[in-house]
Amino acid sequence: MLEEKYLLMLPGPTPVPPPVALAQAMPMMNHRGEAFTALFREITAGLQRVFRTRQPVLVLPGSGTGGFETALQNFVAPGEKVLAVVTGAFGDRWAKGARALGYEVERLDVEWGRAADPGELRERLAAGRDRPIRAVLLTHNETSTGVTNPIRELAQVAREHGALVMVDSVSGLGALPIEMDEWGLDVVLTGAQKALMCPPGLTLLAASPRAWEASDRNPGPRFYFDLRPYRDGYEKASLPYTPALALLYALRESLRLIEREGLEAAWARHRLLGRMTRAGVRAMGLELLVRDDRFASDSVTAVKAPPGLSPSAIRRTARERFGVILAGGQGPLSETVFRIGHLGYVVPGDVVQALAAVEGALALHGLPVELGRAAAAAEAVWLDALREQAPAPART
Amino acid sequence: MLEEKYLLMLPGPTPVPPPVALAQAMPMMNHRGEAFTALFREITAGLQRVFRTRQPVLVLPGSGTGGFETALQNFVAPGEKVLAVVTGAFGDRWAKGARALGYEVERLDVEWGRAADPGELRERLAAGRDRPIRAVLLTHNETSTGVTNPIRELAQVAREHGALVMVDSVSGLGALPIEMDEWGLDVVLTGAQKALMCPPGLTLLAASPRAWEASDRNPGPRFYFDLRPYRDGYEKASLPYTPALALLYALRESLRLIEREGLEAAWARHRLLGRMTRAGVRAMGLELLVRDDRFASDSVTAVKAPPGLSPSAIRRTARERFGVILAGGQGPLSETVFRIGHLGYVVPGDVVQALAAVEGALALHGLPVELGRAAAAAEAVWLDALREQAPAPART
Repeated sequence: MLEEKYLLMLPGPTPVPPPVALAQAMPMMNHRGEAFTALFREITAGLQRVFRTRQPVLVLPGSGTGGFETALQNFVAPGEKVLAVVTGAFGDRWAKGARALGYEVERLDVEWGRAADPGELRERLAAGRDRPIRAVLLTHNETSTGVTNPIRELAQVAREHGALVMVDSVSGLGALPIEMDEWGLDVVLTGAQKALMCPPGLTLLAASPRAWEASDRNPGPRFYFDLRPYRDGYEKASLPYTPALALLYALRESLRLIEREGLEAAWARHRLLGRMTRAGVRAMGLELLVRDDRFASDSVTAVKAPPGLSPSAIRRTARERFGVILAGGQGPLSETVFRIGHLGYVVPGDVVQALAAVEGALALHGLPVELGRAAAAAEAVWLDALREQAPAPART
Repeated sequence: MLEEKYLLMLPGPTPVPPPVALAQAMPMMNHRGEAFTALFREITAGLQRVFRTRQPVLVLPGSGTGGFETALQNFVAPGEKVLAVVTGAFGDRWAKGARALGYEVERLDVEWGRAADPGELRERLAAGRDRPIRAVLLTHNETSTGVTNPIRELAQVAREHGALVMVDSVSGLGALPIEMDEWGLDVVLTGAQKALMCPPGLTLLAASPRAWEASDRNPGPRFYFDLRPYRDGYEKASLPYTPALALLYALRESLRLIEREGLEAAWARHRLLGRMTRAGVRAMGLELLVRDDRFASDSVTAVKAPPGLSPSAIRRTARERFGVILAGGQGPLSETVFRIGHLGYVVPGDVVQALAAVEGALALHGLPVELGRAAAAAEAVWLDALREQAPAPART
């Protein structure tokens, strides 16, 4: 096997397009000079378009977890109460992180593999309590389970209650529809290494005017991750500290690619990737973790390993024999589930290849498999989509 | 002018060698897989060699300021007292940052352009006070003034007092001698975008056993920047969150370059670059901010603009007409000083070129300049060094 050519089907880091990867090799520049201003302006304008917001989108160092911590520390005062809606490992991480940072955390736990229910959130918020809930922490796309939560409806309930709506859209934004301003989301954060097709290392974060008001009132200590200097320097393209320049070069390039494809077209592509994946998985007789297709994620799919075969064995064989890299399950799902990431720089053909690797792995492990069924099911979905897009091509 | 070819003489970001820049374009990988383990092990072993330590060197996202905040929050408990030795803008930033984070901060202010004096530090520490000083915050190389502080001696004084020695070596490590273990430094941090020749975005941090003990006792809230999971996962190459992979590819490559040159050879090269720069600046009749050559930095030189000409005018002309990018002064020095960075991927010829640009800018601005004097002085230093290294080359 040509080990250097593998297909990365992780829910992050995701594959990086060659022009994005190579953009990083451009020479460094003075981040206080004019060339930087042009770079910064192009990036932030592009980010506002993908966030669907008129608010500044801040570019910060670190991964999504860092962005999450930063958001809490800026927009919620120390010791205040937050409600964490937990639908999987990342929701759980936010709840535990908020507690570690000294917040009072109330949890709304949802069975892993199911989506949060706006009605249940409304009931919970209506319950009497001694201290008000200042913020509701939501996960747009729960990467660990492959559930897409109904953010628009959940946000509306939280806003009716008067709480800030803080949304982790790390594995959502860019792949799945999200409308920050229209849906009234107060804080939205994502990482560049997911649907935005960049290498990891950048967190992107936008906040609503009422979130900024909360930040200005917040007496909590903060310095490096005090977002106010970022906001105050935004118009002048002035950053308080040296930014990760090479990653900004990459991000500029990936935003250009998104612009060229069109954001709605990217959403449609991910919708197709998700449907193909689910059709293929079902066709080979495997079970999806998410039973309700309405909430099945179009950026990552969690698949239950068949009885008698561990997810890590499937992943190892897929990697070593078929050159396809899949993700494992997280936390309590680690022994039962593997995940297929299909977000960012991924095309339908990649899904066919990934499904072939899973099917082949099952066969090599001695399971009764009819080769080609997964591909057939995925191709059928693909062809339907192609036929909807355009009439049959000319035969001559 | 070919605008795309400019000479970056900043004290960071510094020029990135082509193999380092291109390494970033390598495909992403699973940061929980075996290939990552090999990458992590090579990087950390290389970092231990440049830090001169047997302790783990942690690789964190962010710039030096983030690393500084992280160090404080992990190794000093909330509200405790620290002594900040301030010799310039970065020492001042640490003092202000520590205060913003809720620490009690005592300052030992030194005139900008001078080095901190170990005797003065001893006297200060001996003074009676109601609360003990838990940590002394030191700047190895003060980037704003071009002063290299006598860290070994300062650290010894701080240790005698029982305080943790926390050293910002952002623009020092890799360029200037530093011996973490031998000098008894408790925390050393640097950024990858300086002498380590990488693009910005990574902070590197190592801590002594007694600093780790302080961290384990520290009840302060922390989550994303809690360093304990990084330390605990070090042996297994397991990181708590997605690392900045492309920057790690770059760092592996730059550490290989440092290994090939040899760390002591890199120190000697920077010593030569510093001496050439100072000789050239003096030869064209300009004044150095640092009067005492014993503490003059070999990684960055601050130069006073001549009367009647602003540093920003010199920098603009050097950039626009000569293609050389210089840094401005910081804080109170912004109207009087410009800075020549000469660290990282910089060779003696670059210094000659930078000096020619400054000399040329002075001439274009109408100052009486004898062209070539700066170059002559720098070349003389260079030739002395070459003659010391080897006998005269054969004439045929």
